[in-house]
Amino acid sequence: MLGNFTYCNPTKLYFGEDSLNYLNTELPKYGDNVVLVYGGGSIKKNGIYDMVMEILKKNGKNVAEISGVMPNPTLAKLYEGIEIARKHQANLLLAVGGGSVCDYTKAVSVSVNCQEDAWEKYYLRFEEPDCELIPVGCVLTMVGTGSEMNAGAVITNQETKQKIGHVFASEDVMPKFSILNPKFTLTLPHYQMVAGIYDIFNHICEQYFSGEDDNTSDYISEGLMRSLLHASRIANQNPQDYEARSNIMWTATWALNTLVSRGKATDWMVHMLGQAVGGYTNATHGMTLSAVSLPYYRYIMPYGIEKFKRFAVNVWDVNPEGKSDRQIAEEGLAAMESWMKELGLVMNITELGATEEMIEGIADVTAVLPGGYKVLAREDIIRILRESL
Amino acid sequence: MLGNFTYCNPTKLYFGEDSLNYLNTELPKYGDNVVLVYGGGSIKKNGIYDMVMEILKKNGKNVAEISGVMPNPTLAKLYEGIEIARKHQANLLLAVGGGSVCDYTKAVSVSVNCQEDAWEKYYLRFEEPDCELIPVGCVLTMVGTGSEMNAGAVITNQETKQKIGHVFASEDVMPKFSILNPKFTLTLPHYQMVAGIYDIFNHICEQYFSGEDDNTSDYISEGLMRSLLHASRIANQNPQDYEARSNIMWTATWALNTLVSRGKATDWMVHMLGQAVGGYTNATHGMTLSAVSLPYYRYIMPYGIEKFKRFAVNVWDVNPEGKSDRQIAEEGLAAMESWMKELGLVMNITELGATEEMIEGIADVTAVLPGGYKVLAREDIIRILRESL
Repeated sequence: MLGNFTYCNPTKLYFGEDSLNYLNTELPKYGDNVVLVYGGGSIKKNGIYDMVMEILKKNGKNVAEISGVMPNPTLAKLYEGIEIARKHQANLLLAVGGGSVCDYTKAVSVSVNCQEDAWEKYYLRFEEPDCELIPVGCVLTMVGTGSEMNAGAVITNQETKQKIGHVFASEDVMPKFSILNPKFTLTLPHYQMVAGIYDIFNHICEQYFSGEDDNTSDYISEGLMRSLLHASRIANQNPQDYEARSNIMWTATWALNTLVSRGKATDWMVHMLGQAVGGYTNATHGMTLSAVSLPYYRYIMPYGIEKFKRFAVNVWDVNPEGKSDRQIAEEGLAAMESWMKELGLVMNITELGATEEMIEGIADVTAVLPGGYKVLAREDIIRILRESL
Repeated sequence: MLGNFTYCNPTKLYFGEDSLNYLNTELPKYGDNVVLVYGGGSIKKNGIYDMVMEILKKNGKNVAEISGVMPNPTLAKLYEGIEIARKHQANLLLAVGGGSVCDYTKAVSVSVNCQEDAWEKYYLRFEEPDCELIPVGCVLTMVGTGSEMNAGAVITNQETKQKIGHVFASEDVMPKFSILNPKFTLTLPHYQMVAGIYDIFNHICEQYFSGEDDNTSDYISEGLMRSLLHASRIANQNPQDYEARSNIMWTATWALNTLVSRGKATDWMVHMLGQAVGGYTNATHGMTLSAVSLPYYRYIMPYGIEKFKRFAVNVWDVNPEGKSDRQIAEEGLAAMESWMKELGLVMNITELGATEEMIEGIADVTAVLPGGYKVLAREDIIRILRESL
């Protein structure tokens, strides 16, 4: 049944090819000191940096920058950003990039006025912020994480090899506004595009493969998955297809903005496994997920056979007639595997640089969350990781 | 394709059987003067009035009341409520009821500090409010309209027989919070329950049967429709089934909180026809929709055959093999008709008190909106209304 829950998601979204203009609507709401946050500099090559700076200047903003935010933002980088934002007395943190930049910016937002160590408070004790937050705005240039409309922020501690995501409970951590222009995603390399697509798909799976009930959230999830499959096949053939890319972008936002998990259990073990692999290999997030997914799902399938059957029929159009539960469920996963290969996703962790020798270490830093059809023991994790090699 | 759009829906939702407790969380955020708004008094019989009053008193609130809000709230009643809220210097308007009460409360909210006539400004000129709004909270006791999380407010002018809905563009008109307790809906008579269910279904249809594209919104709509069909069949047999009623409640919210219309055209003609019938007969809103729906959809189906085919296959599991487009589309509508009859919905306007003599008059007050697969001329409207007798 739909359990008790709260839902609140106040992020204002501006979607479409003209959406950057709305930065002019948002900027006057904040003070003059803006910290622009971005990654490795691709926004300088594709012109987005110049467009954003022009609007910031036009609105009389005093801009400082945090650049070089890496795909798996590190704790060291977080400390650096906190200092820059403090020194600049930031009134607004403007993230221009993908999920990593947006996640990182939220982590800075909750830390600037925090008296304690951010890693210990937010990533080891998982506490909520009790200080004043710096408002966050986002101009999205990569699709996948849903970070533009949620309160999640993943940070990697390179010293301890821990990649930890904290999904804050408070909607105050969510971006105040996000600008979603599908055109900004068109220059992304194919590898990044499909990694993002799989990240989206897996977000939905993590919330879908849990619980025994026939609730609205699962039906919405099936709709989102079907939309993503349709659009991803078009985008895979023609990455310049604006319609497909816009549908992928919109699906990504709703795949992880808390909606499809309302009132139900969730299972985040693929992310836990993927993040542990990411901590060891620094591989692209979406590919760490694709590389461990099928070994994981095949491992837990017997414990959640009803849901895997439903997945096969409702998402992959498997015809159930005359087949055993197991056959139906397996056909669904086989269809998923075909689709993943069609997109060119990485299907094993060896390709990402993981080795047999790393398995124990990866297992050590894999957080085990409840909620899945089988709660994993250490030996289960090792078996799944070996299957993923 | 997904067009350009904005999305923002900041209403905080508290869902579940314990959700009324959260009124204690919300009330301290507002000043002491609360106006409690409710309908014909069923909340006094089922105990909800007492529960809410106890919480209001515990929080030290100074409470005035607007009672007797009718199923189709009238302009005269709106004027009365504006005066009560002004006199009480309301800091919060607390709607306890269904969509009519919630709609009405939003209409009061935008009118209390408005210098102009509310009907002329909001319902004839469709302007946005430019005055300070009184915050609205909602305790939902009937399900269907989605009013708990949108900026819509339908008001009926009895003198001119006009029932007009204004969906305000500003998210400021949305309730600040809404409390959704499925248990509060369990005492509703079967007639009202199924009328609400059809209202939900039709909200999704109005946003689905428009546009030519294969976009995410339509996939989400299909998921919501499938969830509603599933839960409605359970609730029809056993209205006390908490799981089914909670899924219906949650589907209702998402069916009309702007999500599934983002980036696409919509067609609100069933509501325009139904509201015109409602203006003449004062019939239950959902039943005015069910009574005109099939004649309308069968009339426009040839102009939107692709979408009606998709509806048949994806929502009603019609097997398309070896059938013509027309046959597939018709089978979908036939399946919908069976479901409607199974629920016991009113299938013609005669049963609602409409007569052949009223047809011309109803057609006169039917607003014609663009967006559907065929924009209706007056003769089309008259033909559909005759078919609905």
